[in-house]
Amino acid sequence: MGKTNFAMATQSVLKGISQVLLIDNAWSGLLILIGLFFASVEVGFVALVASCLGTATAYLIGANRDKIKHGLYGFSSVLTGIASLLFLEGDSKYIAALVGAVLAVFFTVAFHSIGAHFNLPALTFPFIAVTWCIILASYSMSHLHLSDVTAVTAIHEMTNNQQTVDIFDTLFKDFGEIFLQNSYICSFFILAAIAISGWRNTIMASAGIVISIAVVYICGLNLHDLEMGFYSYNTILTMIAMGSAFHKNIRGSYIYVALAGILTVLLTPVIVIVLEPFGLPALTMPFVATTWLFLIIVNSVEKGDY
Amino acid sequence: MGKTNFAMATQSVLKGISQVLLIDNAWSGLLILIGLFFASVEVGFVALVASCLGTATAYLIGANRDKIKHGLYGFSSVLTGIASLLFLEGDSKYIAALVGAVLAVFFTVAFHSIGAHFNLPALTFPFIAVTWCIILASYSMSHLHLSDVTAVTAIHEMTNNQQTVDIFDTLFKDFGEIFLQNSYICSFFILAAIAISGWRNTIMASAGIVISIAVVYICGLNLHDLEMGFYSYNTILTMIAMGSAFHKNIRGSYIYVALAGILTVLLTPVIVIVLEPFGLPALTMPFVATTWLFLIIVNSVEKGDY
Amino acid sequence: MGKTNFAMATQSVLKGISQVLLIDNAWSGLLILIGLFFASVEVGFVALVASCLGTATAYLIGANRDKIKHGLYGFSSVLTGIASLLFLEGDSKYIAALVGAVLAVFFTVAFHSIGAHFNLPALTFPFIAVTWCIILASYSMSHLHLSDVTAVTAIHEMTNNQQTVDIFDTLFKDFGEIFLQNSYICSFFILAAIAISGWRNTIMASAGIVISIAVVYICGLNLHDLEMGFYSYNTILTMIAMGSAFHKNIRGSYIYVALAGILTVLLTPVIVIVLEPFGLPALTMPFVATTWLFLIIVNSVEKGDY
Repeated sequence: MGKTNFAMATQSVLKGISQVLLIDNAWSGLLILIGLFFASVEVGFVALVASCLGTATAYLIGANRDKIKHGLYGFSSVLTGIASLLFLEGDSKYIAALVGAVLAVFFTVAFHSIGAHFNLPALTFPFIAVTWCIILASYSMSHLHLSDVTAVTAIHEMTNNQQTVDIFDTLFKDFGEIFLQNSYICSFFILAAIAISGWRNTIMASAGIVISIAVVYICGLNLHDLEMGFYSYNTILTMIAMGSAFHKNIRGSYIYVALAGILTVLLTPVIVIVLEPFGLPALTMPFVATTWLFLIIVNSVEKGDY
Repeated sequence: MGKTNFAMATQSVLKGISQVLLIDNAWSGLLILIGLFFASVEVGFVALVASCLGTATAYLIGANRDKIKHGLYGFSSVLTGIASLLFLEGDSKYIAALVGAVLAVFFTVAFHSIGAHFNLPALTFPFIAVTWCIILASYSMSHLHLSDVTAVTAIHEMTNNQQTVDIFDTLFKDFGEIFLQNSYICSFFILAAIAISGWRNTIMASAGIVISIAVVYICGLNLHDLEMGFYSYNTILTMIAMGSAFHKNIRGSYIYVALAGILTVLLTPVIVIVLEPFGLPALTMPFVATTWLFLIIVNSVEKGDY
Repeated sequence: MGKTNFAMATQSVLKGISQVLLIDNAWSGLLILIGLFFASVEVGFVALVASCLGTATAYLIGANRDKIKHGLYGFSSVLTGIASLLFLEGDSKYIAALVGAVLAVFFTVAFHSIGAHFNLPALTFPFIAVTWCIILASYSMSHLHLSDVTAVTAIHEMTNNQQTVDIFDTLFKDFGEIFLQNSYICSFFILAAIAISGWRNTIMASAGIVISIAVVYICGLNLHDLEMGFYSYNTILTMIAMGSAFHKNIRGSYIYVALAGILTVLLTPVIVIVLEPFGLPALTMPFVATTWLFLIIVNSVEKGDY
């Protein structure tokens, strides 16, 4: 019995990691976790603790057991914990990571409820909201210090006109970037996590990379940013969300999926610029904004009332 | 039969142009189109193509035939196409105009759906959203260049204290400004388009001009901007929306219409300043914001629950 | 009969003042009004007139009599009137105060309706929205001038490192700050108004002060701002809202109340920084944002669906 509970808890925690990629698979979560440990022991450890904390908090406040079991209360905590490590410095960043991981659960409850009014999932928005608050709050807190990487997802303007891209970087860095890591080995483990979760997710993730490369070239966006994966990690998430996790069988459904992918790339610099006056990184907001927009459209098409 | 279809398509396309003014009249659309051709052959041509594209896209994705027939899927495309011409330069602006016109249809579907939750129409918000995205995206795209007129609707501060206004300019430039054109002849055609659409629209448009002149003088707003029509084009749209297109028969209904008109003028500089850090023009946002606010109020009053 | 009406009107007007603190008690309103007169005759007078105007406007547009009687149409007008006095200068500020007080009623109707969709009260958001609009509009109006105190609620950064706090200031200035007054005697009257309204409100207000002091120290926020009451007035409002006015009997309900109080302090610098590019003060936005967030959470917990 205790063993079953332990197995259940382990599964919830690992799925809390895989659900960042909208994947409901504990083995995928384990592979990602190993990847994160390879990227940095610190990051791997915080991801594990944050997933445990998020899941435990959800359990304590009496959240839906089924949602907990599928990791739906862990993934925003995982990302918030990792982001706190990246954007802050000094020992207080660990406290921020833990507090952030707990807060993310409350934000998840709130945004689930608001989203439900529009028939939309919260996606990673709780993570985005909490992380933005932590970054902004740190400006006024003498015990919290911003690190230098706040501008990590800054899209460069055309003046920085790199002419060629390292295709290897371009193809693989984006997977790590989903967890804010700039590491090949981490990317490979995440890629493996997607691969074992099913062919549909794999195809969608690959298509996401192809679309982002194509759109970046066609529109003359910055090649260095493409290389760093800044344009593709959001696109990969949108493609998995629209083409797999929330896929709807409507007429021409894959045209909507492709359009959503393309729009994610186009919206990335838009959101980066809107956030510039506030000194905030875009995080996964391009994925969230585009997926909400297209879920509303696809829901309308399915109901036939538009 | 084919002839009927052609007539139907023509009607949809022309109503797509007249619906910018919330007018459901193909002849009005034709007059406006002629006015736009007089302002610039390029603008007239893009308006026509954008209306065709928007209507065709809506048809292809299976949107409600009745809405298409009344031009409700064309007007945001028309405005987006014209705005792309104005705010961008170089040949790529034509591609942006066409892509924007198509995107506007998808945004229309999404905002229709969100608006319906609150019993609100999308108005020209799809146009505003797409155009803002195009302007912001162009900062990062080496293939898209902003023109010098981005600040076209900038409200000047009091330091620029022009003391008198050219009453002729004041009375007529605003109609053209609805389609972002600074042209008398275009304004006259648009005025004619309103006139033939019915006495109610004509009265509301005229009242909009009177209200905007009065409020600008009383509040000491910039007279040069008044002369350019920046304060009145939004007011004209609000008055037609509240006093004609969405008019409700409640007690003292015209007081609400007048208040909406007054608030549109007052909100214009507010929205201009809020958008300044992002380098974005106000477009028809003062009209959209005020009309949403007052439609909510008027709906509450009608239901008697407030 | 006429006497009854007069008594009823007086009660509505006084409750319009007490409802700023979410207190439904005419005597509390009277005490606050006296306190405001002590702070400044001008402020007291404008608060009284604004409450009368707001109540009368709501009556004229046929709003729900019961809501009017409980002061729910007065409090945003009161705050808007007082804020106009503070943020503007010159004689036109009185006109802005009166117009703002009337406008606040219309915004209240609108935000009540939008809030109802999410099962949320409008709180002081109508006041915030109108006051922000007045401040932004004044930039473009030669007849309205901003005073020097616009930055009154600016949270200072850590560089201004005051090392000690005057505990007396810290404990009492915050009550006056709710009505934007920096006055001991006003604070004492407001404290008395809370005290006579019931033990629950008194405990919640006291807990709000304790929480804000604790969080400010723990997080290393600015002690001078704490002393001025900038961190605690929002927390007091949140605590009264969550722990008394809108309190729900759910499991561990006071943990949610305390969390809401803590988050209000943490969100205060966040909102201050987000508003900085627009030159706007935070007003009671930290209270409104946190209370909405936690009301959504508490509603979800009560329904058991999260």
